[in-house]
This record gives sequence, C-alpha cells and structure tokens, in this order.
Amino acid sequence: MAIDETVHRHKYLLDEDEMPTAWYNLVPDLPSPPPPALHPGTLEPAGPDDFAPLFPMDLILQEVSQDRYVDIPGAVLDVYRQWRPSPLFRARRLEQALETPARIYYKYEGVSPAGSHKPNTAVPQAYYNAKAGVTKLTTETGAGQWGTALAFACALFGLECEVWQVGASFDQKPYRRLMMEAFGATVHRSPSDLTAAGRAVLAEDPDNPGSLGIAISEAVETAAPDPGTRYALGSVLNHVLMHQTIIGEEALLQLDRAGESAPDLLVGCTGGGSNFGGLAFPFLREKLAGAMDPVIRAVEPASCPSLTRGVYAYDFGDTAGMTPLMKMHTLGHDFIPDPIHAGGLRYHGMSPLLSHVYELGMMEAIAIPQTECFESAMQFVRTEGILPAPEPTHAIAAAVREALACRDSGEEKVILTALCGHGHFDLAAYDTYLSGRMVDEEVTDARFAEGLATVPSVG
Amino acid sequence: MAIDETVHRHKYLLDEDEMPTAWYNLVPDLPSPPPPALHPGTLEPAGPDDFAPLFPMDLILQEVSQDRYVDIPGAVLDVYRQWRPSPLFRARRLEQALETPARIYYKYEGVSPAGSHKPNTAVPQAYYNAKAGVTKLTTETGAGQWGTALAFACALFGLECEVWQVGASFDQKPYRRLMMEAFGATVHRSPSDLTAAGRAVLAEDPDNPGSLGIAISEAVETAAPDPGTRYALGSVLNHVLMHQTIIGEEALLQLDRAGESAPDLLVGCTGGGSNFGGLAFPFLREKLAGAMDPVIRAVEPASCPSLTRGVYAYDFGDTAGMTPLMKMHTLGHDFIPDPIHAGGLRYHGMSPLLSHVYELGMMEAIAIPQTECFESAMQFVRTEGILPAPEPTHAIAAAVREALACRDSGEEKVILTALCGHGHFDLAAYDTYLSGRMVDEEVTDARFAEGLATVPSVG
Repeated sequence: MAIDETVHRHKYLLDEDEMPTAWYNLVPDLPSPPPPALHPGTLEPAGPDDFAPLFPMDLILQEVSQDRYVDIPGAVLDVYRQWRPSPLFRARRLEQALETPARIYYKYEGVSPAGSHKPNTAVPQAYYNAKAGVTKLTTETGAGQWGTALAFACALFGLECEVWQVGASFDQKPYRRLMMEAFGATVHRSPSDLTAAGRAVLAEDPDNPGSLGIAISEAVETAAPDPGTRYALGSVLNHVLMHQTIIGEEALLQLDRAGESAPDLLVGCTGGGSNFGGLAFPFLREKLAGAMDPVIRAVEPASCPSLTRGVYAYDFGDTAGMTPLMKMHTLGHDFIPDPIHAGGLRYHGMSPLLSHVYELGMMEAIAIPQTECFESAMQFVRTEGILPAPEPTHAIAAAVREALACRDSGEEKVILTALCGHGHFDLAAYDTYLSGRMVDEEVTDARFAEGLATVPSVG
Repeated sequence: MAIDETVHRHKYLLDEDEMPTAWYNLVPDLPSPPPPALHPGTLEPAGPDDFAPLFPMDLILQEVSQDRYVDIPGAVLDVYRQWRPSPLFRARRLEQALETPARIYYKYEGVSPAGSHKPNTAVPQAYYNAKAGVTKLTTETGAGQWGTALAFACALFGLECEVWQVGASFDQKPYRRLMMEAFGATVHRSPSDLTAAGRAVLAEDPDNPGSLGIAISEAVETAAPDPGTRYALGSVLNHVLMHQTIIGEEALLQLDRAGESAPDLLVGCTGGGSNFGGLAFPFLREKLAGAMDPVIRAVEPASCPSLTRGVYAYDFGDTAGMTPLMKMHTLGHDFIPDPIHAGGLRYHGMSPLLSHVYELGMMEAIAIPQTECFESAMQFVRTEGILPAPEPTHAIAAAVREALACRDSGEEKVILTALCGHGHFDLAAYDTYLSGRMVDEEVTDARFAEGLATVPSVG
C-alpha cells in the first residue's frame, strides 16, 4: 500500500494560562430579552425567591444577569485547568475519507475527567453551592454524562451527590452508574419509589422507562424541602449555558491559531441546549457584532425534535409540574421519547434562551435519525480514532452531510462542530448498530400529538 | 466550607512540533548486551530469518538494532500527533489529600484514541507491516488495551485485524470487545477451537479462563503459515519497548518545563514491561550518563510477580512453546495467574531487556496486592478525577506509599509515574472493590511451584 509520509498538524492547543477567565452572557447582546420564567401558581414572572429552594443565590443571580461577562472564580479556574483548554482538532483523515475540500474542525470535550462538556457547569455549580454552605446536591441524569460530571465536582468540593438516572439508560449503561459511584455518588433508577413523583408514575405504569422530565421531578422534590440540600440542573437554564461558553471562547482563539478567520458553518447537537449554546454563543456575539457570518445550525434527534416539531410555549421543565413555567420549544412535559441511544438528547424541552435565539431567526435547526448518525460515527471512529458518544454523532452526521455537499459543489467551507463527549460507556449502542439491530425513530405527527396535548395554555 | 481560590498549574504540555522524532534504543548504552533469543530446536541464537514468519523485516532489524536512536517515520509521526505529546500532570489534589511534601507527577497516556500507551507501538507495527505488503495482523490481548490499540492502528493503515482475547477478560469486559469491533477488528475468546493450541487447552480443561501465553499461541499459529498475515506483539520485545520510549523522552522535556531537574523516584507498573520501559529507558540513559540518579522501581501484581518471584532463565513466550526461547524472569510458560482485574499484567514472563536491566542492578522491583492498588485508585479518582485502569493502580499505589513515607520523613521528593491508561472499560473491577468483594491474590510458594516447574532447562 502507498503510504503518505506527510506530517500534518492535527490539533490546536492553548496553554492553561491562555484559558479565558470569564464566561460570556449572550442575553444583554440580544435585540430583545428572552421571556421570563413564570411562577406556576400566579403566572407572574418568577423572582429570585422562587428559585431559592433549588439554587444558591450566586447561581440565581447569574440566571438573571445582565452582565455581558462573569468572572470565573479562582477555585473553578483551578479545576478547569486540569483538562482545559480542551483541544480543537482538524479532522484531516475524515476529510480525506470523504474526499471533501471542506475543512472540518471539532472541539473535543471528551478529555474532561467525566468524559464530556458537563463538568464545565458541574464544577461551578458545586463550587457556588459549597460556598453557600450547602452539603448535598440532587440531580437527574439521562445517559449519565451529567450525573458523572456532578459526582466528580461534588467529590472535589466535599458535597454529597444523589442522582436519579432515567431507567432506560440505567439499564443500558451499568458502567455509567459505577463511574458515578466511583466518584462517591448515590444513584437511583428513575422512576423510583423514593419520591411522590416517582411513585405516581410507577402506579400508572410499573414498566415506565423513565424520562429526564420524571427524573427532574424526583430530584427537585427531594431537594426543595431540605435546607442543606439543593438541586443542580445540567442544561436548559441560562447560567448553565453561560458556564459552557468557555467552549466557544476557546474555539474562537483556536480557530484563529489554525489560520481560519471564521467558520462558514457551526453545527452542534441539541438536547437541552447547553453543549450547543456553549459553542455557539461566543460566535453569535461575533456575528451580532458583524465580525463574521457563520450559518449556525442545531441538530436534534428525530425522536425528540423540540425545535423542529415542538411548539414555542410556556411549559414545565419536569413531568410532575414542579418547576417554574418556561417559554421554550417543547414537545410537552409528559412526552416520553423513544428509548434511543442518545439518552442525553431525550428531553421534551429546549433551553428557553436558545429557543428565543431560534425565534429571533439567528440560527436554524434540523433533525437526523439515529442510524444515519451511527453511520457517520463509524466513519469518524475509523478515521479520527475517537469513539463519539451517541449525542454528538448527530453533530458529526450533520458535518458529514455538509462536507459531502462541499465535495459535490467544490466549496472549501470551514465546518466547526463540537464532539461533546466520548462514547466509552455507550458501546451497547454501537453493538446495536454493528449487529444491524438499530432502527430509526417513529416520526409521524401522531407520535408527538399526545405529548403536545400536555403543553399548558398560558398567556 | 473554606475554599482555596488559588490557581495552580496542573499540566505540562508540549506542542506537536516539540514531539521527539526518534525512538531511543537502550541496548547499545548498556554495560553488557542482553542474552540473545534462542531457536527452540537448535538452541542456537535466533537470526532474523527465524522471526520472518511473524514480523516484517523492518521490525526484526529494530529488534536487534545497535543504533541508539531510530527515526520515527513520517506517517507514524502524523498519527502520533493526533494525541501526542501526551500531558504530564502534577497530582496537586492527591498531594494535598495525602498531606505530603512530595511532588507527584504522572504522565497520562489515556488520552490516546485507544485509551492507553499501546498505540505508541501499535501504530508503527501496523505501518511497517502495511509497508511490507502484509494485509492482516493477528494478536493476543488481555484486558483489551493492546487489542484496541492494534485494531485502531489497523483501521488507519487498511489492515485486517484478528484478536484472541484472554477468556477471563473477554467475559469481564464486553465493552472492550465492542470497542475493538467498532474499529473493525474480529475478536475471539481464547482459548478458542480455531487453533490446535486452543483446542489442546480446551481438551484438557474446557473451563480454562485463558492466559496471555495461550492467546499468543493462537495468534502465532494463525499468522505463521500465511504469507499475507503477520503477528503483532504488544509488549516484551525490544522493538516494542523502543517504540514506547517516546513516553520517557516527552516526560524528560516536560519535567524540565516543570522546573524539576530530575525525579527522585520513577515508578511504573510492569506486565510485559513496555509501559515501564517506555517511561524508564530515557531516564536510565540519563542515569548511565551521570546526569541524574533516580531510584527506578517496577511494580508488579502480587498474583503474577515475575521479577520478584520468578526465575531468570530461558523460557517460551507462549504456552504452546512456539516462540523462540527468551532469557527472562518467568513464572513458567504454563503458569495461569489468578484472574485479577489488571488483565494486562497477567503475563508469565518479563521483557528480556528489562530482565537484563534488572539483573544488572539498575532498577528494583516490588509486588503489591490488588486491594491496596484499588484503595489508592479511589484516592486518586476522587482527587485527580481520572479513573485509572487496574494496571496503573499498581503504580499509583507505589507512588502513594512513597508520598506517605515523605509525609513522615518530611522529604520533598519528586515522584514520577505513568498513568498508562484509563479504566473506562474496567468498571466491573471498581464494582468488585466498592462492594467489598475484592480479595487479595494467593501468594504462597506453593501457588507458583507448578508454573515454575514448566520452565525448560536450557544452557
């Protein structure tokens, strides 16, 4: 075989000292503010006090902040610096396999101890809670990336951590639970009989596979009445997306180092929106400032297409209806998505901030079925060597679609995407694909009608 | 809780352009050459032709090379550069938890696509085979780190890959097999009924849990008669250890960047010796040149203590006796180690080159039982955040021992170790430990007598 002996550059690193020291808040740069969350009883805008049983005040203030930048505390910077800045890779071997003139870059968050982007917010959340004297955090997790990240962060700041994991993922991915336990967390299968919310679901359907909405209800119900316990959410909320902007801030510096003035396309997967917002918001800032004009495209799973098939309306963040009402693209808080392998994308709603950005026409969205995602993932792993988690296979599939279009058109587009985590705990999904047992999701209107009917009529 | 807001430096990176471009060959720098391998029939020193059915000539010449440095080919450098140079971490939070004045550094090889140091040799082995027109490689694997690495390398160079995995690990770690399959490899449980060697073992004991020695026999038997197929070994041989020296070469540069003139202790785990040799040999070069004087300490599992309880004698590398005879520390080629979780350390013999270095008195060795290793691993994961593979838990346990001795003595020693892989596929081992089901290995003389009796009488 003829072997190419050329030595290329594959990654663009930054030193610890070059890491951004502030998170970026998109809200004040938007042409109009996102609609406020509403108290579910009064339907009045929810104030800081409404969130106080769940979050420490520092995070509540970040949630409603109008500051463009928020300094990252020293103790959080110190933890970030263990794995950050994360590398930006150029996918040279994938480009070659696709015979595309496009240049594909991916920001890889799988280098974190938890294996995903989730520690970017888990660490500050644990930090602010510890600083406020909280001793225990509860949370939900789907595939387990978020639960693992919070378990890691709690171990560093001396907090107890109790996790409700969506039943379908709990059963599919036993190693994820063990990883959380290795960090010292307690993990329950959701729906559980430990909470009223869980018992109500089980009474109706003892075989309910769970959903993020149910698991959130269980975690919130456990945290709210206990003054030493607070709740942590891994996506959706403004402060979570803000913590993730370190991804995009680093990527801006790294693309520049790669000699690229701007991406032509920025594409990422969306579940609750934190990975996508984290990468996209700093680029949106540049776009709003007229410094660049990338197409910004969200990719959601065909099984849970909140942006492309949901309604933009006030809905609950959880199944039991315990959270404030948030205006977002939603499939209905009672919607139970198909048990696809991208457990982290199985959420009925979209981040209210990202939903607002979408409504403003600043980004676009598509949905891709899971077999196409895994087909692209196989091309990726056999060229780039990194096994993607099922969630970012959606981003890879969209990048591959664009790269193939460039092959046909001859355009040398710059494509930037986020590989938000590795798939080391998701090999059962690859087994399903490789053995030919993977099927695409049902995407008829009828499939979504029942969930959409549970969206409350507000305002 | 009082939170320390100090920002520290956690890692020492090198740019791709700073990566060493040559492997280091320790052999010509030694005061005496290691004893040659012997042809098992004639008992004469084995020549290149004796190895030709198994390896391409480029690798055979490296095996017997007297050159101090061998240039790394461009195509190999290009693959290395995806994840190399790997980071050198300072274990600041572990130091703090241990209340030690020692400074602990670990070179982390888990950032490779396969999750361990093994691609450092898998990639050049696949490269030289592809260059020689070989179309398929066979190999053995224990825990699966090596099989995964070779599967990855074969995918990049267009080679088929067929792996025999030790039965005990095949059963314990199904995700490892899936990872190899994701890279396109075919994986068999060893002993298998596909080879005469496997069938002979199964005839005697249908429940034989397998060993690296048996799996090597199966892979060698399959490769030798087929001119398009060659065999690849993941440790033990000189060329394998030489490929791994990139670890130590980088670590030398990185320690210097950390402001350390030399380690006081270099400690690593040993199975076949490639991770340890890879880290230690460049430091041994400096030691031989009088530039530094670190204590160099190998750590082996109590269940498979070839250096500390084996004999230094000619023995076969495999169970069926198909390989050349190699002078090494061995527990006997028929020895079946206890099914401990560090599958990668369950090999009856030690690298002949490392055995020779040990006999020359240039390094020391200890054995540590597995519960102490996992106890240290738990301290490590809950401070450093990285989940170690069971193999390097031995290195961590030894580093912790030394750090605690420093706490008692007040010595500010510099401890350097290698975290040769992550444990994402080894969580069943952590489950065993966390649930209190892990037991230490049997280490009586009687346990090793039967294996030692199978060492042939040669010379």
